[in-house]
Amino acid sequence: VSRRVINLGLAGFGTVGSALARIMVENADDVARRTTADLRIKTVLVRDPDKPRGFDPGPETTFTTRVEDILDDPEIDIVLELMGGLDNAEAFTRKALEAGKHVVTANKALLAERGRPLFELAARKNLGLYYEASIAGGIPIVQALKHSLAANRIDKLQGILNGTANFIMSEMTTKGMSFEEALAEATELGYAEADPTLDVDGIDAAHKLALLVRLCHGQHYPFEEMHIEGIRGVTPEDIRFAREFGYRIKLIGQIRQDGSRIDAGMFPALVRDRFLLSKLGKNLNGIRVMGNMVGPLFFTGQGAGGLPTASAVLADILMLVRRIDAPDNTGFIESDLPLAEVLPPEESVHEFYLRFTVADRPGVMAAIASVMAENDVSIAQAIQRDTGEGELVPLVFMTHTASTRAIARCLEATSAFDFIGAPTAMLRIIEEDA
Amino acid sequence: VSRRVINLGLAGFGTVGSALARIMVENADDVARRTTADLRIKTVLVRDPDKPRGFDPGPETTFTTRVEDILDDPEIDIVLELMGGLDNAEAFTRKALEAGKHVVTANKALLAERGRPLFELAARKNLGLYYEASIAGGIPIVQALKHSLAANRIDKLQGILNGTANFIMSEMTTKGMSFEEALAEATELGYAEADPTLDVDGIDAAHKLALLVRLCHGQHYPFEEMHIEGIRGVTPEDIRFAREFGYRIKLIGQIRQDGSRIDAGMFPALVRDRFLLSKLGKNLNGIRVMGNMVGPLFFTGQGAGGLPTASAVLADILMLVRRIDAPDNTGFIESDLPLAEVLPPEESVHEFYLRFTVADRPGVMAAIASVMAENDVSIAQAIQRDTGEGELVPLVFMTHTASTRAIARCLEATSAFDFIGAPTAMLRIIEEDA
Repeated sequence: VSRRVINLGLAGFGTVGSALARIMVENADDVARRTTADLRIKTVLVRDPDKPRGFDPGPETTFTTRVEDILDDPEIDIVLELMGGLDNAEAFTRKALEAGKHVVTANKALLAERGRPLFELAARKNLGLYYEASIAGGIPIVQALKHSLAANRIDKLQGILNGTANFIMSEMTTKGMSFEEALAEATELGYAEADPTLDVDGIDAAHKLALLVRLCHGQHYPFEEMHIEGIRGVTPEDIRFAREFGYRIKLIGQIRQDGSRIDAGMFPALVRDRFLLSKLGKNLNGIRVMGNMVGPLFFTGQGAGGLPTASAVLADILMLVRRIDAPDNTGFIESDLPLAEVLPPEESVHEFYLRFTVADRPGVMAAIASVMAENDVSIAQAIQRDTGEGELVPLVFMTHTASTRAIARCLEATSAFDFIGAPTAMLRIIEEDA
Repeated sequence: VSRRVINLGLAGFGTVGSALARIMVENADDVARRTTADLRIKTVLVRDPDKPRGFDPGPETTFTTRVEDILDDPEIDIVLELMGGLDNAEAFTRKALEAGKHVVTANKALLAERGRPLFELAARKNLGLYYEASIAGGIPIVQALKHSLAANRIDKLQGILNGTANFIMSEMTTKGMSFEEALAEATELGYAEADPTLDVDGIDAAHKLALLVRLCHGQHYPFEEMHIEGIRGVTPEDIRFAREFGYRIKLIGQIRQDGSRIDAGMFPALVRDRFLLSKLGKNLNGIRVMGNMVGPLFFTGQGAGGLPTASAVLADILMLVRRIDAPDNTGFIESDLPLAEVLPPEESVHEFYLRFTVADRPGVMAAIASVMAENDVSIAQAIQRDTGEGELVPLVFMTHTASTRAIARCLEATSAFDFIGAPTAMLRIIEEDA
């Protein structure tokens, strides 16, 4: 077998970059058996060339602070954007594509918020812009949607796409912690960053969900229109009630179609406890995909971390090496990939969990139930319980399917009642399709 | 975008063939967006052209009984071997490859038992011989191992690879049925065939496991050397004891490496009940893969059925269309794919579950425990219980890791004791790696 050298240029040498170098050394024999190309990290762009590195890639690799050393080097075939952030990463990725280089990236924020012109540029130049590492780390969901499920219309996708948020929800559930206590523990263990906003407010997971719309439906999703709700408002009390009903609460991203419109949202939801998604503890990620021909498929694994992410980066590199002349970034013909029509979030239908805090007196249940009936919201189950702790008691409903708008109207109308003692808690319930 | 026609030739038009035709019609718009090729089923080889068909592929398709109408047609690019069986399928596949046609097949028996010369022929001719549909139906495990996990050494694979066997085990567990009762129910519901041998004796699942060795390790596995044990011997009593310990019993295929040797086997095993594999009910398939860089990944879905299987067949066709000049059948360079070194089954190490049936009298526990100590088998847990139903009582042990040979010696030695009232039950326990 005649072998050829493929030169890689890395922008960034943090957790993922150094893990990639480590895999290429430690698994060199296994990787060499999978391709006739000899991969070499030729050049690494860093801000500070003197900073200690997580792994030494060896003497073949040059470290530089000049971006031209990658972009203007005709020997570099594939560029890895592992710098993160938006402005610099965007400029670098655009220039790399303009220079005729394939790009592999783990930057979900860049692709979700500013990806469209980059994907269009890559398609015009017939170049790869691959991003397996951007969604759920080492779980091969991009490849599965691009290729393995290409015979299917994807009717529904439901996922746990942020390990930090899942860790917090799991700790709240199993240890009865408050959100603040669980966040503090996640921070101490290194699962949460100093500023946990991207993780706990659902933004990081929503970036991934926007890219999953691209992969499921061949449409670019306008990120700024997505319904994004984080987990700061989930209380131990809601978790306990959910469990009484046989559910757990998880931060869930969901993609459905409503006619020609895309219904994508990120929110904390009750998940029936026999559903595999509800069983994902710790910082695991998991995705359930419903194809109209294959039925339901479920994938789970580590959604973050240097080695799982670098494993996905290297898979993309190998795909490019194997098909260097015919990349397909989405699994759809890229040149006519349309802008998605978006279902307005208030039209999105779900079953809902509602917890009212009410004065313990006659007529309360009837008054609330009447409001729900007036708004065509049908009640599936209810729990009313005397806590013996004062004048206010919880009154919990699970509804049948209703629109978000109808529920909002119920909450508005009931908030005017004088017997309501606190804001009403509202959560969506997702179902496992058969 | 300029489009070209790719002509398919189908050998066989049973459940999978007619499901493929149905997908190509019902999902035509979705599939057309994923490739610039227009797929057409040009010719279908059948035994009886007058037999009613599950789906009418339309007037573009010709039905024939002459194999030459596919093999000698230069317009046919890709051939689908969906006839099943060994001799005819082998001859057809060889001739198709010799005629320069790519082959997609769902025939795990053919590839596991007689695949080696076919894969070598395909490699020599630079042709695709794809088989996603052969393993776990619609679950994209072949693609995942070929491409997505290519950066990893695969340290362990554990799978539920036969839906019929899993259905029977699930019914025995949840309803307390005997094997015979559960098999009768599976037959009635159409999950089991009139002759259930391939399913309940583990042979069908073992065919898949042999192909998974190829994909995990880039080695051809000599099928006749595999340890294959079915589920006929699993009793309700063992299922109850396993549950007392926190386990369920499943038919598991497992692949490990022992030094340079492959340790692959198919057997009913106890699976800890928090492990996702133990939660797979009904006729689901599931696979857990441990990559040395990505960590554990878990996949589950429908492992059989016309539409899920045809979904996988069509994914393979689309991969071939996208890369028609550079197929890779295994994800390893095919021309130097070696024969696997096989770990002899008796050297395979596990934790074990042993249920002795003993006379209820002093010294029994000591005698058995001494035999185990003499053979370096260490006891992790034990249950001794007076059933009050007669002179014979069960005595159950869970061991620490031991070789299969050491356990066999214990069973041989203890069988000579006069207090042993029945053959001893032995099952492996598989662990979920962290």
